Amino acid sequence: MVSIIMGSQSDLPIMQQAADFLKSLEIPYELTVVSAHRTPERMFDFAKSAKNRGVKVIIAGAGGAAHLPGMVASCTTLPVIGVPILSSNSIDGWDSVLSILQMPSGIPVATVALNGATNAGILAAKILGSSDEEISAKLEIYQLSLKEKVLSTIEEIKKEHPNSYD
Amino acid sequence: MVSIIMGSQSDLPIMQQAADFLKSLEIPYELTVVSAHRTPERMFDFAKSAKNRGVKVIIAGAGGAAHLPGMVASCTTLPVIGVPILSSNSIDGWDSVLSILQMPSGIPVATVALNGATNAGILAAKILGSSDEEISAKLEIYQLSLKEKVLSTIEEIKKEHPNSYD
Amino acid sequence: MVSIIMGSQSDLPIMQQAADFLKSLEIPYELTVVSAHRTPERMFDFAKSAKNRGVKVIIAGAGGAAHLPGMVASCTTLPVIGVPILSSNSIDGWDSVLSILQMPSGIPVATVALNGATNAGILAAKILGSSDEEISAKLEIYQLSLKEKVLSTIEEIKKEHPNSYD
Amino acid sequence: MVSIIMGSQSDLPIMQQAADFLKSLEIPYELTVVSAHRTPERMFDFAKSAKNRGVKVIIAGAGGAAHLPGMVASCTTLPVIGVPILSSNSIDGWDSVLSILQMPSGIPVATVALNGATNAGILAAKILGSSDEEISAKLEIYQLSLKEKVLSTIEEIKKEHPNSYD
Amino acid sequence: MVSIIMGSQSDLPIMQQAADFLKSLEIPYELTVVSAHRTPERMFDFAKSAKNRGVKVIIAGAGGAAHLPGMVASCTTLPVIGVPILSSNSIDGWDSVLSILQMPSGIPVATVALNGATNAGILAAKILGSSDEEISAKLEIYQLSLKEKVLSTIEEIKKEHPNSYD
Amino acid sequence: MVSIIMGSQSDLPIMQQAADFLKSLEIPYELTVVSAHRTPERMFDFAKSAKNRGVKVIIAGAGGAAHLPGMVASCTTLPVIGVPILSSNSIDGWDSVLSILQMPSGIPVATVALNGATNAGILAAKILGSSDEEISAKLEIYQLSLKEKVLSTIEEIKKEHPNSYD
Amino acid sequence: MVSIIMGSQSDLPIMQQAADFLKSLEIPYELTVVSAHRTPERMFDFAKSAKNRGVKVIIAGAGGAAHLPGMVASCTTLPVIGVPILSSNSIDGWDSVLSILQMPSGIPVATVALNGATNAGILAAKILGSSDEEISAKLEIYQLSLKEKVLSTIEEIKKEHPNSYD
Amino acid sequence: MVSIIMGSQSDLPIMQQAADFLKSLEIPYELTVVSAHRTPERMFDFAKSAKNRGVKVIIAGAGGAAHLPGMVASCTTLPVIGVPILSSNSIDGWDSVLSILQMPSGIPVATVALNGATNAGILAAKILGSSDEEISAKLEIYQLSLKEKVLSTIEEIKKEHPNSYD
Repeated sequence: MVSIIMGSQSDLPIMQQAADFLKSLEIPYELTVVSAHRTPERMFDFAKSAKNRGVKVIIAGAGGAAHLPGMVASCTTLPVIGVPILSSNSIDGWDSVLSILQMPSGIPVATVALNGATNAGILAAKILGSSDEEISAKLEIYQLSLKEKVLSTIEEIKKEHPNSYD
Repeated sequence: MVSIIMGSQSDLPIMQQAADFLKSLEIPYELTVVSAHRTPERMFDFAKSAKNRGVKVIIAGAGGAAHLPGMVASCTTLPVIGVPILSSNSIDGWDSVLSILQMPSGIPVATVALNGATNAGILAAKILGSSDEEISAKLEIYQLSLKEKVLSTIEEIKKEHPNSYD
Repeated sequence: MVSIIMGSQSDLPIMQQAADFLKSLEIPYELTVVSAHRTPERMFDFAKSAKNRGVKVIIAGAGGAAHLPGMVASCTTLPVIGVPILSSNSIDGWDSVLSILQMPSGIPVATVALNGATNAGILAAKILGSSDEEISAKLEIYQLSLKEKVLSTIEEIKKEHPNSYD
Repeated sequence: MVSIIMGSQSDLPIMQQAADFLKSLEIPYELTVVSAHRTPERMFDFAKSAKNRGVKVIIAGAGGAAHLPGMVASCTTLPVIGVPILSSNSIDGWDSVLSILQMPSGIPVATVALNGATNAGILAAKILGSSDEEISAKLEIYQLSLKEKVLSTIEEIKKEHPNSYD
Repeated sequence: MVSIIMGSQSDLPIMQQAADFLKSLEIPYELTVVSAHRTPERMFDFAKSAKNRGVKVIIAGAGGAAHLPGMVASCTTLPVIGVPILSSNSIDGWDSVLSILQMPSGIPVATVALNGATNAGILAAKILGSSDEEISAKLEIYQLSLKEKVLSTIEEIKKEHPNSYD
Repeated sequence: MVSIIMGSQSDLPIMQQAADFLKSLEIPYELTVVSAHRTPERMFDFAKSAKNRGVKVIIAGAGGAAHLPGMVASCTTLPVIGVPILSSNSIDGWDSVLSILQMPSGIPVATVALNGATNAGILAAKILGSSDEEISAKLEIYQLSLKEKVLSTIEEIKKEHPNSYD
Repeated sequence: MVSIIMGSQSDLPIMQQAADFLKSLEIPYELTVVSAHRTPERMFDFAKSAKNRGVKVIIAGAGGAAHLPGMVASCTTLPVIGVPILSSNSIDGWDSVLSILQMPSGIPVATVALNGATNAGILAAKILGSSDEEISAKLEIYQLSLKEKVLSTIEEIKKEHPNSYD
Repeated sequence: MVSIIMGSQSDLPIMQQAADFLKSLEIPYELTVVSAHRTPERMFDFAKSAKNRGVKVIIAGAGGAAHLPGMVASCTTLPVIGVPILSSNSIDGWDSVLSILQMPSGIPVATVALNGATNAGILAAKILGSSDEEISAKLEIYQLSLKEKVLSTIEEIKKEHPNSYD
C-alpha cells in the first residue's frame, strides 16, 4: 500500500493527482493530512507505525519550509517520496524545493518536481513494480500510452505544418 | 537560561560564537547537539522539556535542509532563534536560509543571517533584556562598544586619507 | 506592549495580521507608519524612545530595499522582528528578505517569512511569554487550536479517500 | 541488484559513495560510465536491458545539463535515482539540480541532494527494503548507528560547554 | 531545410513563431512533436536521419527539465538551436534555460532566450545565410525593417514629448 | 537638459515616470526611443553628440539583455542612469538588472531599481542639483513632501489602531 | 569634493579604489568609516551636514544588508553612489546588491557593480564633469587610455594567433 | 573562416579553447580582442566588415555585463555565438549568462554554457559543416572520438567495480 500525506488541506488539489494515478493502476493507497509543525506527535506516530501497517512507500507533499518529507524519512526505513508544493507566500517554490531536496547524509528523500504529485504516484508504482511483475507490466502499458498520446498530436499538427519526417 | 543546539558537531565552530557572546554578558547557557533527522526522539523530548527546565530562549543552528529550528519551534511556546549554517554541499546557503525562514503560519522561527550565530546570541540577550533591566543595561554597553570600535578605526584611516568631517 | 510599524501604508493589509493575532491574545499593541527613507528623523526618535514608552518588542515590516527593521534595531536594545513584504516592483521578494535577514554582526533582526506578519505577532507573543506565564498559557492553547484545525480537516478528507491510519 | 551509472569518470569520487554504502549493507551493485551525450546508444541499450539483467534500482549521477537520469528513466519501468553533481563550470550546481529534478509529468526521477551519492545508495536500499525484510532490518541498524554517532559527539561537547539537558 | 521540433503540443504557440519567421523569408521548414522522454526512439531516429533527409539546421524547443535539444545534438553533426520554454510548474523558466544551455564539452546547443522562438528562426536563417547569399540578403532587409519600425515609433512619441535630437 | 531614452516603445509607460518627475521640477528634458540592437548607428550618434547638444545627464531604460545604458555610457563622458525594465519573457527582471548593473571597470552606469524610472528622474535632478542651488532647493521641498505624505497616512491609520507614539 | 564612506574598515581595500581613481584625476576627496548600524547618529549627522561642508557627491560602500547608501540618500539632496561589497557570510553578494539597488520610489541610490568602487569613482567624476569642463576633458583622456590599453593587448595576441582584421 | 573575439585579454585562457578546437579540425580562424565598452568604434567596424572579409561565423566571449556578442550580432547578418565567461566580481556568472542569452526579438545570439569556449568552436564547425561535407565528416569523427574516450574509461573502472553490463 502507498500512503499519501500532506502538510495542509490546501495541498490536496495537487496531492490528489498522486492518488488518481495509483487508482488508475489499481494500487491501493491511503491519503490524509499530517502536519510536521501543527501535529508533530501525529507525524511521529504516523511515520513509526507506517511499516507495521503494511505501507510500502510514503508520498509526502508540503510547501514553504517543507519539513514533513524529511522528518517522516528520519523515523522510518520506508522510502519517502517528497513533493515540493508551490504555496502562497512561497518564494517561487525555491523554499519548498530546497527544504525537501537538500537532506543531510543518512536521511534521503526521493524528491520530484515542483507540484509533481503525478510523478510521485508513478515513482511509487515504479518502486513497488521493482519487485512486483504485475505493477511493472501496468507501468509498461502506461509508458506506451504516453507515447500514443504524443503520436496522436503529431497527426493534428501535420494538418497545419509541413512535415517530411513522419 | 539560553539553550543552544545544533544539528551536527560540524556546526560547532559557528554556533560557539553564540555561546561566546552570552558568556561575555554573563548570561547562563547550555550547548549541545540535537539532530532533527538522526535523533528525532531526542529533539522532541528536548523541545518539550525545555520550558520546564527553565530555558527562556532556544537558539538552533543547522545547515542544508535545516529542519531543526522549525521542528523545535513546533513543540514549544518558547521563542526559537534559527541560525542558517553554510555546510558543505549546500547550494550557496540558500537551502539552509529558506528551510529556516519560510515557516508556515502558526510556527515562527526568528531567523538571523547565514552563519550569524553571534547575532543569535545578541538576539537572545535582547529577548531576555526586554523583561530584565540588568541584561538590557549590558546590551546598551555592548552597543556603545560597537560604536567605539568604529570610531577607533576612523583615527587609523585618517592617517592615510584626507577627511574634513571628523 | 508590542509596537507594530511599517514603511508604508501599502504594507497595512499584511501588517494588520500581526495586530489581529495580538488582539486575539489580548496583548496590547500600537500600530503606525514609520518610514526609514521618507521620515528618517521620526524613525530615529521612534526607535530611541520605544523602550521608555514601555514597548517590549518591535515588529517592523517593509518591502524592497527594506532598511526599517535593521535601522530600528541599531537604535534600541529591544528585540526587533522583521517582516519582509512582497511589494510591487520587488524582485520576487528577494530584495526585502535579504535586506532584513543579512544584518551584520552586532545588530540582529529576528526575521520571519515573506509576508509572515501573523508569525511576527506570534513570535512577539512568544518573546513576551518567555517571562509571562499568562501569555505562555495562551500560546499553548493557540498551538492546540492549530492541531485541532488540522484534525478537523482529516475527517473531511476521510469522506473521499481511504485512510487506514486514523 | 543496484546499477550505479554516471555521465563521466570525473563523477566517480562522488558516485563511489553510493557503492560504498551498498557494499556496507552487502547489497550487490554494478558501477560504470554511461554518457547520455557521448554514448547515446549505450545509454538506450543500458536502460532498456537493465530490467532483464536483474537490476531492481538504477542510480544515475551527472553534472551540468544533466540528462542521464531523466533519459534512462524514459526507457525503463525501474525506479531511477538521480544524483546532481557539482561539476566544474557549473553555475553553483543549479543546472544539474534543475535538469534532474524538474522532469515532466510521466517520467519521474527520484532526485537527492547535490553530490548526495551516499543518500542515493541509502534510498536504493530503502526501495529494496520495502519488499525485503533483511535489507529493511539492516537499514534499521544503520539508522541507529547515525543516532549513536550523534550521541557520542554530545559527550565530547559536554567537556567544554555546560549542558543541563543530558 | 529547417526542422522545428518541440517536446509537447503545448509548446506549439511559442514554437510556431520560428515557423512564421522562416515562412516570411520563404525558407522551407518542417514542424512536428518529438518528445525525448515519451518517445525516445522517435527522437533518436529523428536525430540520426535528419541530415540524410536534407535538414540543415534543427530548432528544438522544450520546457522544464528540457533534454530534447541536448539529446538531439548528441546524435547529429547538424547545428541544433535550443529554445527554453516557460511551461507550467516551471521554476520561473530557470529549469528549462539551464537544462538547455549548460551542455557538457563536446555537445553544444545554440541556446536562445526564454520563449525566444522567433530568434531561433532568425538564427537558423543566419546559419543558412552564412553560405547562401540570397538568404543573407533577405536578412539584411529584415534587419532594416527592425530599424524602420523603431524609427516610426519615434515620430509618434515626438507628438507628446520634446526631443531636440531627431 | 536631461535626455531620456529607451530601447523600445513598450518601455514608455515606465520611462514616462522619469519625464513626469522632471516636469514637476521644471527641469527640461527630451524623450525618445534609441535601440542598441535595432538602431546601433542611431545609438552611437546619439551618445556621441549628446554632450554637444547640451545634455547634462542621460537616463536610459531597457529590458531583457539590456545593453543600451552601458553602450551609451561607453561613448560619452556624461553620467548615464540605467533603468532595468521588467519586460515580457524576462526571467523575473534578473536579466535586465544584471545587464545594466554589472558593467566592467571603466564604464559605470548609475543603476536604479527594477522599473525605477521615477527614481531615475530624481537621481538626474540630484546630479544637476549638486551644482545648481535652485534645483537643489526644489529637491529639498520634494523630500519634505514625501515626509508629509507619510505623516498624513499616520492620521488615517490612527483611526483604526491604537498608537501611543504620535 | 567627493566624500567616500564605507560601513566597515574591512571594506577599505575595495573602497580605496574609488579614492585612487579620484586622486588620478586630481579631484579632491575625503574618506572615512560611517556605519549605519553601529554609528547611526554619526551617519545622520554626516549625511545632513555633507552639502554644507562642500561635498558634491557621496560614494557609500557596504556589504550584507547594506543600508548605508540608502539611509544617507534619505538625508541629503546630494547624489549618492552605492557600492555593493562582497563581504564574508554574504550570500554571493546578492544581499548587498539588492539592499542598495532596490530603493523605494523617492530615494534613489546610483548603484554600481559588485565591488565596483573604481566605477563609483569614475561615476562621481562624470557627475562633477557634467558641469565642469576640466573634469570632463580629463574623463575623455581617461576613456582614450582604456582604448589604448585594449589596442596594446591586440599586438601581443597577434604574435600567437592569426588575425586578418587589424 | 571563423572569427573569435573577446572583450578583454583576461578572457584569452578560456577563448583559446575555441581556437584549439578549430585548429584540430583545420578550420581557419582569426582571434583578437574587441571591447564593446572600451573600443566601441572598433567593435562596430569589426562587426560591419566581417562578412566582406570572408568571415562565416563569429564567436564572441565576454564576462560581467557582457554586451559584446549582442552588439556584434546587431551589426551583421552572420551567426554570432556567445560565450559567457566567469570573470572576477561576477555574481556567479549569472550576469554574463543573462546579458548574452536574453537578447530581444530580432537579434539572436547562439549562447553556449558558462566558459563553454570549446563548445563554441564545435558549434561554429557544425554551422560550417551544415553546408560543407568535409567539415561534417570531421565532426562525425570527432563525435566518435568522444565515445571512444568514454569507452576507454569503462575498462579502467571495471578493474575496481563489478559490472555485469559490459
